[in-house]
Amino acid sequence: MESSQLIPQRIAIGYHPFLVDAPQEAEQIARFLQGRGVQQVISAPMPDKAFRQQIRDGKFDLLIALGGDGTMLRAGHLGAQLGIPVLGINLGRFGFLMEVQRDEWRELLPRLLDGRYRLENRMMLRAEHLRGEQSLGCWSVLNEVVVCRGQFVRPVRLKASVDGYALATYIADGLIVATPTGSTAYALAVGGPILPPDLRNILIVAVAPHLSLDRAIILSEGSVVTVTVHTSHQAVMSVDGQAPITMEDGDAVRVDALPEMVRFVRFQDYGYFYRNLTAYMEQNPAAEDLS
Amino acid sequence: MESSQLIPQRIAIGYHPFLVDAPQEAEQIARFLQGRGVQQVISAPMPDKAFRQQIRDGKFDLLIALGGDGTMLRAGHLGAQLGIPVLGINLGRFGFLMEVQRDEWRELLPRLLDGRYRLENRMMLRAEHLRGEQSLGCWSVLNEVVVCRGQFVRPVRLKASVDGYALATYIADGLIVATPTGSTAYALAVGGPILPPDLRNILIVAVAPHLSLDRAIILSEGSVVTVTVHTSHQAVMSVDGQAPITMEDGDAVRVDALPEMVRFVRFQDYGYFYRNLTAYMEQNPAAEDLS
Amino acid sequence: MESSQLIPQRIAIGYHPFLVDAPQEAEQIARFLQGRGVQQVISAPMPDKAFRQQIRDGKFDLLIALGGDGTMLRAGHLGAQLGIPVLGINLGRFGFLMEVQRDEWRELLPRLLDGRYRLENRMMLRAEHLRGEQSLGCWSVLNEVVVCRGQFVRPVRLKASVDGYALATYIADGLIVATPTGSTAYALAVGGPILPPDLRNILIVAVAPHLSLDRAIILSEGSVVTVTVHTSHQAVMSVDGQAPITMEDGDAVRVDALPEMVRFVRFQDYGYFYRNLTAYMEQNPAAEDLS
Amino acid sequence: MESSQLIPQRIAIGYHPFLVDAPQEAEQIARFLQGRGVQQVISAPMPDKAFRQQIRDGKFDLLIALGGDGTMLRAGHLGAQLGIPVLGINLGRFGFLMEVQRDEWRELLPRLLDGRYRLENRMMLRAEHLRGEQSLGCWSVLNEVVVCRGQFVRPVRLKASVDGYALATYIADGLIVATPTGSTAYALAVGGPILPPDLRNILIVAVAPHLSLDRAIILSEGSVVTVTVHTSHQAVMSVDGQAPITMEDGDAVRVDALPEMVRFVRFQDYGYFYRNLTAYMEQNPAAEDLS
Repeated sequence: MESSQLIPQRIAIGYHPFLVDAPQEAEQIARFLQGRGVQQVISAPMPDKAFRQQIRDGKFDLLIALGGDGTMLRAGHLGAQLGIPVLGINLGRFGFLMEVQRDEWRELLPRLLDGRYRLENRMMLRAEHLRGEQSLGCWSVLNEVVVCRGQFVRPVRLKASVDGYALATYIADGLIVATPTGSTAYALAVGGPILPPDLRNILIVAVAPHLSLDRAIILSEGSVVTVTVHTSHQAVMSVDGQAPITMEDGDAVRVDALPEMVRFVRFQDYGYFYRNLTAYMEQNPAAEDLS
Repeated sequence: MESSQLIPQRIAIGYHPFLVDAPQEAEQIARFLQGRGVQQVISAPMPDKAFRQQIRDGKFDLLIALGGDGTMLRAGHLGAQLGIPVLGINLGRFGFLMEVQRDEWRELLPRLLDGRYRLENRMMLRAEHLRGEQSLGCWSVLNEVVVCRGQFVRPVRLKASVDGYALATYIADGLIVATPTGSTAYALAVGGPILPPDLRNILIVAVAPHLSLDRAIILSEGSVVTVTVHTSHQAVMSVDGQAPITMEDGDAVRVDALPEMVRFVRFQDYGYFYRNLTAYMEQNPAAEDLS
Repeated sequence: MESSQLIPQRIAIGYHPFLVDAPQEAEQIARFLQGRGVQQVISAPMPDKAFRQQIRDGKFDLLIALGGDGTMLRAGHLGAQLGIPVLGINLGRFGFLMEVQRDEWRELLPRLLDGRYRLENRMMLRAEHLRGEQSLGCWSVLNEVVVCRGQFVRPVRLKASVDGYALATYIADGLIVATPTGSTAYALAVGGPILPPDLRNILIVAVAPHLSLDRAIILSEGSVVTVTVHTSHQAVMSVDGQAPITMEDGDAVRVDALPEMVRFVRFQDYGYFYRNLTAYMEQNPAAEDLS
Repeated sequence: MESSQLIPQRIAIGYHPFLVDAPQEAEQIARFLQGRGVQQVISAPMPDKAFRQQIRDGKFDLLIALGGDGTMLRAGHLGAQLGIPVLGINLGRFGFLMEVQRDEWRELLPRLLDGRYRLENRMMLRAEHLRGEQSLGCWSVLNEVVVCRGQFVRPVRLKASVDGYALATYIADGLIVATPTGSTAYALAVGGPILPPDLRNILIVAVAPHLSLDRAIILSEGSVVTVTVHTSHQAVMSVDGQAPITMEDGDAVRVDALPEMVRFVRFQDYGYFYRNLTAYMEQNPAAEDLS
C-alpha cells in the first residue's frame, strides 16, 4: 500500500490566516520536525506573499497546509506550480482533502520522515477566459471553475460545447466544470456524482438549471469544454472559490486538462476515500428497516 | 367551471419594455377592446411610472400583462396592491403564469367581455428585512424571496427557523422561501415540489446545499419563517428576481403570508395547470418501454 | 405547549414480534404503569390477532407501540380504527414516529399519567383498488400507497389524474401517494419534500421516473388522486410496506383523505419535528466553510 | 469523421417480436440490401433461437436490430459474443441506442455498403452471482446490473465494496452498477450522470436510498465492485432488464469490466450523442428568461 518515498528535508508550513491558534500549532509542528532532523522548516499564513516567494526560491520539498480545505486548495495550487507535494493537517471541523487530524500529527509525521507514505496524483484543469479571439487570463483549477450569475439573482444563459460539438444550452444560476477532486466540493452540493481522486475525468454539472439538462455529464480527460455566457444583467467566473471575474455577454471560458498534477501526501490506504464518504454522507448508518 | 364575473370597463395594458412589437400588439388589443364597448383602454410599458400612477388614480378594473412571466410578475404586484385582477397575454415563448397565447386573444377576449372567466386567487408572502430589531424594508412576494450569496461564488451560512423553532442550518448558495406560484419558478430549478395555484402553503428549499438538508419543506399558511444569514464575504436578498439588497452578517429576513391575494383571470378549466406541467416538464411523452 | 389531557386507565402494549428483549421490556413498562395506578395493562406482539381482538373488545384508551417505525405503523392503523391514541417507545435505532427512547420511558411515562402530553393529529388516506367499476379492496393509509413494478425490474406506465384532470403519465418504477407522515418515509428516499405532521396535504412523487415528471406534487386535502397502471409484465400496489397486491393491466388505485385521523401522544414541544430533521438529515453540521 | 470500413457481405436482421409491421419492414430492408449486392440477408424475430443459432453458424458480419432499445440490447449481447457489429434501426418512438430512424434507412444504408461509417466501441461489464465461494451464474452486461427488492415494496440492505474496500451500505430499493451505455437507461431515471459512449468507467447509483449515500459514484475501468444483499423478505438481481434472479440473504454480485466491447455502427459524427441529449432531456429549449 505504501512505498518508500523521498524523505523531505525542507518543509514549509502554510497556515489558515484567521484561525487564532494556527501560528502556535505551526510552531509546534515545526519544532517537532526539526527535532527529528528536518533541515529547514518555515511557517507563515498561507496567503502571505513573502512566504510564497520564499518557498519558490528555497527549493522546499514539502508544503504542509494547516487549516481547512481552503488552505489546502491554496497550498495545492502553489505545490502544483512548484512541483512539490502537499500534506494537509486539519484544524477545521471537516475537510475531504485533509489527511491528518489536529490530534494525529504527532503520531503520523514520523511516517513522513521514514518515507512511509503514498503520493496521490490528482488531475487539474486549465481555465481560459476568452473574449472573442482574445485571452483575458488563464488559471489552473484544482476543484472547479464556475460560470454563473453575479449579484443579480437571475439565471444566465450558458452554452456548453465539448470538442467543438454543442452539448447543451443551460438557463441556470451557473455551470460547474470540475475535477474529480472538485466532485466532493461545489459539484456535490448540486447533486453531482462522486469521482475518486485517481480518476482522470472532467465533470460538468449545472447549478439550478431551469427546464434545462439537470444531470451531470462525465467527460474523458482529453475533452475540451467551452462555456459561453449570454446575459443582460451580470455574469462572473470563479476558480476554486476565488474572487469572481466579471464576464461580458458573449465571453467564454475554455477548459481542458492540465498536464501537471497536484500531489497529496497520504498515510492512509486507498480506501480512506470511501470511508470519508461513509462518514460524511451516510447520515445515519443506523437507519434500520426494523419494523 | 366558470361563473359570471364582472365585465371590465376600464382596462390597462402593460407591455414588456424591450419587445419591439409589444407596443403595436398592445395597440391592436386596445382597439379590439374599445370596438367591443370597453369604456377606456390605456397601454404603456409595464415599468413606466406615469402609467402605473395613472392606473392607481384611474379606477381601472383590469390589468393586462403583455409579455412574459416577468411582465406578469410586475403586473401581479401592482394588481394585488390595487385589488384588481390581472390577465396575462404571452408574447414570449413560454410562461407558466400566462393565460392567453399571442394568437389566441382575438378568440378569447370576447369571453372576458361576457363575464365568462374564472378568477384564480393566489397566495402572496410578505418579506421583511431585519437588522436586529430594526426593519429595513418590507416587500410583497409573488414568487419567492431568496437569501443567498452575492457576487462571491461561495456558500453562505443560513439559519432558518419556523414559528420560533430552529429548523435547520444551511451552508448553501441560498435559501428560497416561495409561494405555490413560485413553486414553478426558481424553486423548481433546485428540485422543489410543485404546488398547484390554489394551495396555501409556504415552500422552503435550498440552492446548492453543502452537506445540509437538501429536501424542500412545506409549511402551512400560518407559519412564520425567519432566515438569518452569516457570512464573511457577501450576502443578498432578492424578491421575485428584483435587484438584490445587500445583507450584513447577522441580518435576517422574516417571511409570512400576506392577507391579500393576487387574482389572475383564467378562461381555461382548473386542469390547465397540470396540462402545462405535462407540456413543459414531461420531455418525451413518447418514451415507450418498447423493447 | 401541553394541555391537560385524559389520563389513560387501560393501556395495551404491542411490541415488535422479533426483538428478543421486547417482551421483557413490555413487562417492565406494564409493571411500572400498574405500580402508578393504571387499572389494566396488557402486552403482546403487535401483530398477534388475539391481542388485537382483546384491544377491540376491551375499551382500552391508549396503545403503546414498542419497537420501531413498523410497529408504530401497525399500532397507528389499529389506533385510528378504534379511535384511541398511540404512543411510540423506540427499541430500534431510529424512528421518525417514535416519541420516547428506550432509556427515557421511566422519566416520561409519569407525564402520561398526569395528563401532561399533547395529542398530535395526523391525516390518513384511503386507497381503493379498482378494476373497471369494481372495487377489489379498500385500505387506510398512514404513510403511503405505492403503485409499482413487481418482481420484474422494468418500469411500468402509470397515468395519474387529480379530481378527474389528467396530471401526468409516468414511466417509472412506481408512484407514491403519501400523507405528511409518509413524507419522511419512502417518499423521502426518492427526493420528496418534507411535510410537518400537522399539514393536511397529499404528496405525489415517482420512483425512478424515466423521462417523465420527476418532481413531487403537493395537493390539497380534498383532492382525489387516481393512478391507473399499464404494463405487459407485472405491477403491484402496497400500503405502508405491507404485502404487495397484484394489479392487472388497466387496474387503478383511487386515493383520497380519510375523515379519521390517527392520534400520536407527544411529550415534546412542536419543534421536535425539526430537531429530528436536523439530527437525521443534516449529516454534518460541522461542515464549515472554513478556508 | 468516418473512415473506410469493411463492407458487410452477410447481414442478419433481428426484429422486435411483437411489432406487427416489423417483419415486412425487415423484408424490405433485406430486399434493398440484396438489390445492392449483399450476398446474404436473413431476418427473424430477435429472440428466435433458430435465428440466433443461424447467425452463430453462418459467419455473418453485421447484425441489424430493428425495433427499439430492447431489441438493440439483445442484438448487442449477441453481437458482442460473436464479435460482429450491430446497427440499430428504430421502429419505436425513441431510442438512445438506435442510429437510423424508420424513414431514413433507404438514404443511409448505401453508406454502409460503401464502408462510410464509424464503429463505436462500448464497454461491457461482467456480473457474477456468488453464494459464498460458489458461482451461480455469470452474465455480460450492456446497460446495467441491478440488485434490488423483489415484489415486496420494502428496501433491502446492500453493502457495496470497491476493490475490496468498503464503499457504503445502502438501505434502498436497489443498487445499479452500469456501463456508460447504461448511464442513459435506468441510472438516468434515478438521477445518475451521463457518460458519453466512449468512456470506460463504471457507474454506481442507488434506487430510492433511505438515509444512505444518494450520489452516484464513478469508478475507473479496472475496478471490481461487489454488492452483497441483506434482506428478510426478497431480493433479486437483473441484468439489462431481463427476468429477475432470486438472491438469498448474504448473496453477492461481483462486477468488473469485460475485455470484449460491443461495436455499434454509426453514420453520424460523434456529436450525435449530445444532440440526442439535447433533444430528449432539454424539455423546453424555448424556456426564455424573457421578462
